[in-house]
Amino acid sequence: MGPGEGATPDENEMAFDLGQAIGREGWITLTGGRSFGIMDAALKGAIEGGGLTIGVLPGDSDKNASENAQIKIITSMGSGRNYISVLSSHVLVVLGMAAGTASEVALAIKSNKRVILLNQDEDTIRFFKKVGSYKVLISSTVDDTIRQIKDYLIVNPVR
Amino acid sequence: MGPGEGATPDENEMAFDLGQAIGREGWITLTGGRSFGIMDAALKGAIEGGGLTIGVLPGDSDKNASENAQIKIITSMGSGRNYISVLSSHVLVVLGMAAGTASEVALAIKSNKRVILLNQDEDTIRFFKKVGSYKVLISSTVDDTIRQIKDYLIVNPVR
Amino acid sequence: MGPGEGATPDENEMAFDLGQAIGREGWITLTGGRSFGIMDAALKGAIEGGGLTIGVLPGDSDKNASENAQIKIITSMGSGRNYISVLSSHVLVVLGMAAGTASEVALAIKSNKRVILLNQDEDTIRFFKKVGSYKVLISSTVDDTIRQIKDYLIVNPVR
Amino acid sequence: MGPGEGATPDENEMAFDLGQAIGREGWITLTGGRSFGIMDAALKGAIEGGGLTIGVLPGDSDKNASENAQIKIITSMGSGRNYISVLSSHVLVVLGMAAGTASEVALAIKSNKRVILLNQDEDTIRFFKKVGSYKVLISSTVDDTIRQIKDYLIVNPVR
Repeated sequence: MGPGEGATPDENEMAFDLGQAIGREGWITLTGGRSFGIMDAALKGAIEGGGLTIGVLPGDSDKNASENAQIKIITSMGSGRNYISVLSSHVLVVLGMAAGTASEVALAIKSNKRVILLNQDEDTIRFFKKVGSYKVLISSTVDDTIRQIKDYLIVNPVR
Repeated sequence: MGPGEGATPDENEMAFDLGQAIGREGWITLTGGRSFGIMDAALKGAIEGGGLTIGVLPGDSDKNASENAQIKIITSMGSGRNYISVLSSHVLVVLGMAAGTASEVALAIKSNKRVILLNQDEDTIRFFKKVGSYKVLISSTVDDTIRQIKDYLIVNPVR
Repeated sequence: MGPGEGATPDENEMAFDLGQAIGREGWITLTGGRSFGIMDAALKGAIEGGGLTIGVLPGDSDKNASENAQIKIITSMGSGRNYISVLSSHVLVVLGMAAGTASEVALAIKSNKRVILLNQDEDTIRFFKKVGSYKVLISSTVDDTIRQIKDYLIVNPVR
Repeated sequence: MGPGEGATPDENEMAFDLGQAIGREGWITLTGGRSFGIMDAALKGAIEGGGLTIGVLPGDSDKNASENAQIKIITSMGSGRNYISVLSSHVLVVLGMAAGTASEVALAIKSNKRVILLNQDEDTIRFFKKVGSYKVLISSTVDDTIRQIKDYLIVNPVR
């Protein structure tokens, strides 16, 4: 999960690497499915890594969808679709920060999901640790993120 | 699309055959994802036919999901998820009839989708033809349904 | 509940009368809140009758809302908001018919609400009676509709 | 907006005072509509102040609704209803903090609404100021909150 418009080139690059690493693990990558920013970069990387990709789209058609979303879930809910993205994920990795992304972190905590804050600043970490406690994990590299997901899945296997 | 509880054994059998035929075409089968009735039978057939399956689930977890839904979209929206099922589909095939199913046919017409009424009675066909006109197609066998989907996709290819 | 674009002048007039009668009873009138058709006419009548009005809007702002919706619930869900309209109502009266309206009738039956089909044709009545059984009531005048609502509310009082 | 379970007695008292002040202004008070915490206290105060109250409920019936919600919008969307609460509000006042509340602040910023953080700690203010910039206002008393809402409504009148 991460911003569309506001993502920096560095963040998009890291999102690509993350998607690629997720794909290599054989996991599914799910994002908000738009055609730019973190959402698109992660999906593109995931395909590169050999993984399956899902976009949970805000609009009422696939018109503005990322071409890297192999499966397009069309919600017609705008940012209301963020809750569906969160509930449909086993673990969230959050890269970059904006209002929509913050709502996903908050809804993930509310839904008792694990959220890995990747490369976030001190203010973000402090706030979400206060709201989410043990559900919020911290990481600064893609490798460490993958490792933390594996640790979580050992204890909480996907059926 | 079709009912959970109210489906007859014959309808479930036809749903299995339909899912299998869809899977064999290499198409994705999407249903409401519950663990019984048309939803489950179609997904089971689709896997048998070698296809990918998606369940768009009404609950807030995958607890009552069909084990044949390979991809589980969790909406926490109850019957509100019917609109997402409809929007995310390219063509709807409707087998069996109940209130939830009727809402899907109506929302599909509203969203300008094609709906194939498979094995429906006269009253159902007459009502939805009146509301949906050319968007509503009629079929009585799985083979004819697949043929009608192909005809539609030739003119309206999936990007 | 009833269509926007497709409503006939006669239907809009009856919707106004119905809203007015609902308002006079001191009941709240809730519609899909758009600025034309049955939705607008019923709200306008309701205000004339001294009632409170609610529009459950499809868009993400109040831009296209009926000016007769005193309370505007903004959903950003398109036709997905139909389920919220249905769940938030105690009794549905359906006047005119189109795809969106049909989805509301179906969702109301699914949600175990009472639906009064006002001035509907034989095909519509036959279909929804088959799907909804005793939950579907038939009326041909505003007066009879109000009387049927009262009968229902005596047995099922609003808390 | 504010938490249900996690609200402190002091926060609930302030929510009551806030609701009362909003009611006295003749404004509508809208909350998540549950029967405890900030949601209930604010609605109770609003009625005391002579205002109209709306609860946008997470469940599929009014069973667990606050008895102080005069108008009950039933969404069947769980925390997905937070986006509807946000979009349907002109200004948000946020008292107390928890994951659901944080999602509302974030969605409000995303939707270009003004959010008044009432009595929030430094970490919360710093994070949301970073994400929301000028859209996020700070207050520490009910009186100052009302004054800030008035200032906003002078420039951005409700139609």
